[in-house]
Amino acid sequence: MIAVIGGSNCCQKYEEMAQEVGMEIAKCGAILVCGGLDGVMQAACKGATEAGGLTVGILPGDDREAANEYVQIPILTGMGYARNAIVARCAQSAIAIDGSYGTLSEIGHALQFKIPVIGLHTWSFSVDGKKDKSIIQAHDPKDAVEKAIAAAKP
Amino acid sequence: MIAVIGGSNCCQKYEEMAQEVGMEIAKCGAILVCGGLDGVMQAACKGATEAGGLTVGILPGDDREAANEYVQIPILTGMGYARNAIVARCAQSAIAIDGSYGTLSEIGHALQFKIPVIGLHTWSFSVDGKKDKSIIQAHDPKDAVEKAIAAAKP
Amino acid sequence: MIAVIGGSNCCQKYEEMAQEVGMEIAKCGAILVCGGLDGVMQAACKGATEAGGLTVGILPGDDREAANEYVQIPILTGMGYARNAIVARCAQSAIAIDGSYGTLSEIGHALQFKIPVIGLHTWSFSVDGKKDKSIIQAHDPKDAVEKAIAAAKP
Amino acid sequence: MIAVIGGSNCCQKYEEMAQEVGMEIAKCGAILVCGGLDGVMQAACKGATEAGGLTVGILPGDDREAANEYVQIPILTGMGYARNAIVARCAQSAIAIDGSYGTLSEIGHALQFKIPVIGLHTWSFSVDGKKDKSIIQAHDPKDAVEKAIAAAKP
Repeated sequence: MIAVIGGSNCCQKYEEMAQEVGMEIAKCGAILVCGGLDGVMQAACKGATEAGGLTVGILPGDDREAANEYVQIPILTGMGYARNAIVARCAQSAIAIDGSYGTLSEIGHALQFKIPVIGLHTWSFSVDGKKDKSIIQAHDPKDAVEKAIAAAKP
Repeated sequence: MIAVIGGSNCCQKYEEMAQEVGMEIAKCGAILVCGGLDGVMQAACKGATEAGGLTVGILPGDDREAANEYVQIPILTGMGYARNAIVARCAQSAIAIDGSYGTLSEIGHALQFKIPVIGLHTWSFSVDGKKDKSIIQAHDPKDAVEKAIAAAKP
Repeated sequence: MIAVIGGSNCCQKYEEMAQEVGMEIAKCGAILVCGGLDGVMQAACKGATEAGGLTVGILPGDDREAANEYVQIPILTGMGYARNAIVARCAQSAIAIDGSYGTLSEIGHALQFKIPVIGLHTWSFSVDGKKDKSIIQAHDPKDAVEKAIAAAKP
Repeated sequence: MIAVIGGSNCCQKYEEMAQEVGMEIAKCGAILVCGGLDGVMQAACKGATEAGGLTVGILPGDDREAANEYVQIPILTGMGYARNAIVARCAQSAIAIDGSYGTLSEIGHALQFKIPVIGLHTWSFSVDGKKDKSIIQAHDPKDAVEKAIAAAKP
């Protein structure tokens, strides 16, 4: 079970990346979990679904229709963005693409839960001038999924 | 997506009932969602899995191993029993079997969210002496699933 | 810390009861916690505030203005009705007045967490014909608060 | 209502800073909200309590004893680190000190909720090489509290 985290608004370049990530996850036989909305999440679900994989969307609201059309299993939490912690928690590793503040909170939660995070053009951060190196950098979607599979928590 | 709600400790009679409910849900092509633990939840997942259906477990903790062996898609919430609201929220209708206090809270949440609840030997309740009739009573597992499908929220 | 649980719509009789409960809680020096909205919750907060007590409202949304005017400490959860579990969890005992389905879910959560529940014209329930006697019945507001203080979890 | 966010393990220098922040918050008549545990949270609660202020701790677990001794109003969520979203949500502005991954998730949530974040030796971050400037930098505790009061959401 691999999470794809990223914002609901993103440029086409990142959507293409997310779609390829979704496709690679499906090819590996893993289940894709995400926040279930648009942008990065929709593109990843599209890639996974078209490659025959399974997609889970952990939604903030209680409206089934808010899920993007490629979410096969919508989990309506009705919990708002506190659902970000669940997206992070239920994955065995996470791939972060691009970056909104929601993505930043999900990266924080994942690292707090000791879930490996693989980054594709996403947030990098430092504290008091010291760069944090917890995010595993990937070169491209295929590399990201390989690293996510290799690092996945049991 | 139909929820099966019921306690993690129950007698054999209710487990058999839950297993048959799970089987019927799978036969109808619906996805079974539950709390992912033992007792009623495990029996229902077993029935659904053996009939070729899909099972989702919304777990209170963060331990993948706590899911019963028939949960195909474990959602680790790490939220404790506040996850009961999610089990209720993400179903289109719910079948309650037997009764623990957790089940009572899930019935309360489901009715609060206007999700139809079908009862099989579960809680009944009254307020100030006036019996509440919101729970749709079922005679047996097959009847419960038929009523759950018929009443399901879009 | 004593919870007052009850619906956001209720008749005047129950509002008066709730207000008296709030007043008695404040007189005992306890903190009142509730869901922060109208009806029973507002009346209880009014009673406590007017008697010089402290009131905490655990709100479902993210709007400070949604809290009733007698909530002194609004906790905005943004979690919807999953916040019911928190209201139940953070109290040392709970007084349930009248009854909505939200109240039913809170009673279920409280009993699940082994938090004593004192009832004033609230839900009663039975499973498979056997009446559950976990709710401690009270005759009037003063009696309810005395029983809540006596039964309070450490 | 001002949140102080920061890790449960920190060096003495940051504890002193947090204690002064707590003191300044109390002097301004604001309520301090935090995660209720040790380290930065405890020091801030100590400062606020000793200056006569009110402190709220939003705890991850269900154990009243886990709150630091300066938490006056413990909110037991039993939700684990999904409670980070509530800490961020219920504040009108937040002061982040030092940095753990939990703090990173809280900063992400706060920015997602458009709650101003004031930083004291905390995380800084950039996406795709572009530095994010949403965190308002403060020079010292007094400056941080002044900026938090000035920026506070209504």
